[in-house]
Amino acid sequence: QSTATTVGSTMMATPTYAPITAAEVEAAQRAWGDALVTIATEYDTKGHAAAKRLAAQVIDTAYGYGLGPVLFKPTLAASPTTFRTDREGAISYFVGGNSAYPGDSGFALKGWRSYEIENAGILVKGNSATSMGNVTVIDAQGNRTTVDKTWGYVRGPDGNLRIVLHHSSLPYKSN
Amino acid sequence: QSTATTVGSTMMATPTYAPITAAEVEAAQRAWGDALVTIATEYDTKGHAAAKRLAAQVIDTAYGYGLGPVLFKPTLAASPTTFRTDREGAISYFVGGNSAYPGDSGFALKGWRSYEIENAGILVKGNSATSMGNVTVIDAQGNRTTVDKTWGYVRGPDGNLRIVLHHSSLPYKSN
Amino acid sequence: QSTATTVGSTMMATPTYAPITAAEVEAAQRAWGDALVTIATEYDTKGHAAAKRLAAQVIDTAYGYGLGPVLFKPTLAASPTTFRTDREGAISYFVGGNSAYPGDSGFALKGWRSYEIENAGILVKGNSATSMGNVTVIDAQGNRTTVDKTWGYVRGPDGNLRIVLHHSSLPYKSN
Amino acid sequence: QSTATTVGSTMMATPTYAPITAAEVEAAQRAWGDALVTIATEYDTKGHAAAKRLAAQVIDTAYGYGLGPVLFKPTLAASPTTFRTDREGAISYFVGGNSAYPGDSGFALKGWRSYEIENAGILVKGNSATSMGNVTVIDAQGNRTTVDKTWGYVRGPDGNLRIVLHHSSLPYKSN
Repeated sequence: QSTATTVGSTMMATPTYAPITAAEVEAAQRAWGDALVTIATEYDTKGHAAAKRLAAQVIDTAYGYGLGPVLFKPTLAASPTTFRTDREGAISYFVGGNSAYPGDSGFALKGWRSYEIENAGILVKGNSATSMGNVTVIDAQGNRTTVDKTWGYVRGPDGNLRIVLHHSSLPYKSN
Repeated sequence: QSTATTVGSTMMATPTYAPITAAEVEAAQRAWGDALVTIATEYDTKGHAAAKRLAAQVIDTAYGYGLGPVLFKPTLAASPTTFRTDREGAISYFVGGNSAYPGDSGFALKGWRSYEIENAGILVKGNSATSMGNVTVIDAQGNRTTVDKTWGYVRGPDGNLRIVLHHSSLPYKSN
Repeated sequence: QSTATTVGSTMMATPTYAPITAAEVEAAQRAWGDALVTIATEYDTKGHAAAKRLAAQVIDTAYGYGLGPVLFKPTLAASPTTFRTDREGAISYFVGGNSAYPGDSGFALKGWRSYEIENAGILVKGNSATSMGNVTVIDAQGNRTTVDKTWGYVRGPDGNLRIVLHHSSLPYKSN
Repeated sequence: QSTATTVGSTMMATPTYAPITAAEVEAAQRAWGDALVTIATEYDTKGHAAAKRLAAQVIDTAYGYGLGPVLFKPTLAASPTTFRTDREGAISYFVGGNSAYPGDSGFALKGWRSYEIENAGILVKGNSATSMGNVTVIDAQGNRTTVDKTWGYVRGPDGNLRIVLHHSSLPYKSN
C-alpha cells in the first residue's frame, strides 16, 4: 500500500508571456537611464542628427509605440502638447527640432552624464507592472534635476519590457 | 455527409476576474470625482470630523490599500512625504490634520463642487488598466484647477475597480 | 561631479493581485489532493452526510464557483452532464446522491488514502496559471488510478488560488 | 459657476496587448477546425509530404510553441508520450511518421471534412483565455468523432491568439 503524497513538476523554459518581475522593471529603468546618458553624450560628441537617430532607436526599443498608443506625459511638456501618445511626439520631446512641438528644446540633449533612481514602489500586476519614485539626472557639471516619475510596462513581442505609461513631473513646491 | 462547420458557445455569466473595460475605468473616474465633491460638501456643511470619516470610507472604496501598497503621488505633496503608499498618508492628503504630514492642508476640503475629466487615453492591459489625461476640479466660486493625472486600476475582490496607481501633477509652465 | 548610476527600490509588501507563482500552483494541487483524501476518510468514518458537508466546504475553498462559472470536466462524467460549470454539479460529482446527475456515484467516496501528482508543466500567464500532468489517486487497498489532468487557476479575493478550469480524463488506450 | 461633471476619452487604437475577447477565442477555434480540414484534404490530394509541410505551418500559426512550452494532451496519445510540450511532438501527433512517437498514426490524416464546436464555456482571464466543450470532427463518409476539449490561449507577438494549452479526451463511457 502506497501512502506517498508527492507533487513533482518537470522543469520548463520560461514562456515569453510569463509574468513581469520587479527585477525586470529595475533593469528596464537602468536601460532608460543609460539610454538618456548615451543620447546626451552622442549629441555632445557627434551633433544633433546623430542624437536624433539614436533617440529614435532608443524610443523604439524602450517604449511600446509599436504595440499601440503610449500614455506619456513628459516633465517639461505643456498644453496643448502635454500628452505624447505617438512616437513622433516622444522623439520631439527627447531631441526637439519639430515645428509641431515648438516648446520642445530636446530634453535628452542637456548634457546628462549619470542618473539615480529611487523607487517608492514597484507593483507587478501580472503581464504589466508599474513603478513610482524619484529619478535624478545629473549633467556634466554635476547639476542635479530630480523628478517624480511613474512608469508602466508590458512585455513586448521579443520578451523585453516596453514602457506604455510614463508620467514625469517636477516636484511640487509650496509657496 | 455533414459539411456543417459551426462554433457555438453557451452564454456564461461574467466572472469577477474578467478583464477590465474602458467603460469601467470611466465609471471609476466618475466615482472618484463624485467622492471628492461629496467630501468637500460634507466638510462645508458638517465639519472636519464628518469629512474625515467620509474620506476614510471613500479611500477604502476607491483605492486599493486593502490589497497592498498603492503608488500615490498627490498633486500637492512634496518631499519627504511625496509618495503615499499607505492608507494613512492618503487620508491625510485629502483631509489634513495629521502631524506626520505637516504639509497637508486637506485637498478635499477646498470647496469642490464639480469636475471635468478628459482622458488622453485609457490602456487596458488585462486585469489592470491605466488612464492619463487632465482632471479639472471646480470650486463653489467657479475657480478651476486643472492637473495632469495618471490612474492605474485593478479589480478588487468585490468585482469593483480599485486605484493602485495615482500620479497627479500641476501642469508644467515654462518661464 | 556625480557619476553615480544607481537604482534602488523600497521594499513593498506583495499585493493580493500579484502574479501567480509555480510554487502556489503546486501548493494548490497538494490542497486538492489532501482534500480528496480527507473527504474519502470522512465518508469511511462518519458517513455520507458528513462527507457531503465537507465536500461542499472543499469545493468552495478550492474551486472558483464563487467567482463565476467554472470549466470542469470530471474524469467519470458523460453526456449530457459532462461539464459541471456550476457548484451543484461539482458537489454531485464528488459525493453523488443528486437525482439530476444519475451517473454520479461519488468520486470522492472511493476510499482514497493518498495521491501522487506529476506535472508535465506549469504555465504561469500573469493573473492565471495552468498545469497539465498525471494525477494518481491511491485507495486503502493500494489500488492506483492514474488520470490525465489539466487545472487552471486564478487568484481569489482572499489571495488564495481557485480552480476555474479542471479537465480530467482516463488515459487513452489503443486497441 | 460651473457645475459640469463630465468624463471624456479620446479614442485610441487597441494595443496588441489588449485583453482577449470571447469572439477572438471563437475565431481561433474556427481557425483550428479549418486547419484540420485543410491538412486532411491536402493529404488526400497531395500526399504525406505536403500534409506534413502544411501541418508544421499550421502548428506554428495556431500553437504557441514559439513562445515557450505548450501543454498539449492529444486525444489519442498515451504514456510515455502523452504530453506534447514541444513542437516536434505536436507535428508527430497530427501527421505521424516519427519513430520517436511510434503510437502516432497522424490524427490530421483521417479524412476530416468538417467540424462542429460547442463550447460549454469560455473564460477570459485578461491576457489569457480558456474554453471547454465538445468538438466533433466529421470525415468524408460522414462519420462523426466527438471529444471533450479544453483550449487555453495567449496573445502572440503578432497580436493573434496562440494555443498554449490543449487537453483533448474521448468521452467517458460507463460500463
